[in-house]
Amino acid sequence: MRIGILGTGDVGKTLGTALVQRGHTVCMGARQAGEPKAAAWAAATGAAASAGSFADAAGGAELLFNCTSGQHSLSALTLAGADNLAGKILVDVSNPLDFSRGFPPRLTHMNDTSLAEELQAAFPALRVVKALNTVANPIMVNPGLLPEATDLPICGDDPAAKQAVTELLRGFGWERIVDLGLISQARGTEAWLLLWTRLYGAMRTPLFNMRLVRAA
Amino acid sequence: MRIGILGTGDVGKTLGTALVQRGHTVCMGARQAGEPKAAAWAAATGAAASAGSFADAAGGAELLFNCTSGQHSLSALTLAGADNLAGKILVDVSNPLDFSRGFPPRLTHMNDTSLAEELQAAFPALRVVKALNTVANPIMVNPGLLPEATDLPICGDDPAAKQAVTELLRGFGWERIVDLGLISQARGTEAWLLLWTRLYGAMRTPLFNMRLVRAA
Repeated sequence: MRIGILGTGDVGKTLGTALVQRGHTVCMGARQAGEPKAAAWAAATGAAASAGSFADAAGGAELLFNCTSGQHSLSALTLAGADNLAGKILVDVSNPLDFSRGFPPRLTHMNDTSLAEELQAAFPALRVVKALNTVANPIMVNPGLLPEATDLPICGDDPAAKQAVTELLRGFGWERIVDLGLISQARGTEAWLLLWTRLYGAMRTPLFNMRLVRAA
Repeated sequence: MRIGILGTGDVGKTLGTALVQRGHTVCMGARQAGEPKAAAWAAATGAAASAGSFADAAGGAELLFNCTSGQHSLSALTLAGADNLAGKILVDVSNPLDFSRGFPPRLTHMNDTSLAEELQAAFPALRVVKALNTVANPIMVNPGLLPEATDLPICGDDPAAKQAVTELLRGFGWERIVDLGLISQARGTEAWLLLWTRLYGAMRTPLFNMRLVRAA
């Protein structure tokens, strides 16, 4: 599959590399073409990896990952261009975190909205699936790092898009994917970060996840 | 121990009964003395159970559970009386949920505050420990209902109070208690309800909890 990665941080690099390793063609998009981090990643990752602008990454892709920081996601998609996004699936990995007052961060979107909903509303022809935002990036592409199977909640308005994303996630090793429903359920999975960041502090590692245990 | 329960709903009754069964003396307090639900609970629960006003429950107790709904918790503590609360441990089980726009609920406190912090700030001589608000009431007193051990985050400013609450929780069967730190960490455990309510919908049962799995 031709996949575009929006964002050049650790999340984008980890996802991009894992997708190339699974046989996909990946273009990493940055705010401006020629961004050194994206170019370095592409050079190190091989012939199936390339780098460009957000518009380059979106225009050539069938499926996109939003790996930008939450406060810049809307502008990144705007730069990618509505025409380049129309009909595409976007896996929204971002979180609406505000670190301006320190750690743990605050959320910029909550209760009556979420970042995923804001992106979906701004680009109605985009098929947004919220996923992977609930775990640290090494676990995103390798849930087997954890000694027990754990749960990954996803949501989105488009059932076919969720199915396509679910198949990609299974390729990373995710077995326990919990479909919460419509994209508005991202209000729950984004709010998890308010607890996740505090558990991170208590557990002294970001390499953890929740295993949901229910009564028999 | 002499324990006061503030609130006469299912959470209060479940906790009150479990505490009586473990040998404690429990007074269930309501907004007004003579509240029928509290009287009925006390009559059904035996000689170690009694009913009264919030002030009655607080005045005679060494340790309190706040089992009122979040929107009424501050007024309940005000009715209990600052003198009756001074020096006491309060296990705050409540959540700042607003169902006025339907299900899933919104939070009335978040980001820069939490209900637990508001209660602690209003009654500085009270020793607030946030605990048990992250699970449904049958699991609060019997985590063994779930087929695997799961995690219970707690927080509070007073280490000795947290230790006393931890011992009570161990009496209910909790083995995996995660101390997140100061009472402000309740911003995380209360926000969990935004995800919990959505998982509840997807899992079709409230009888679940998170088991935290970390990399070895």
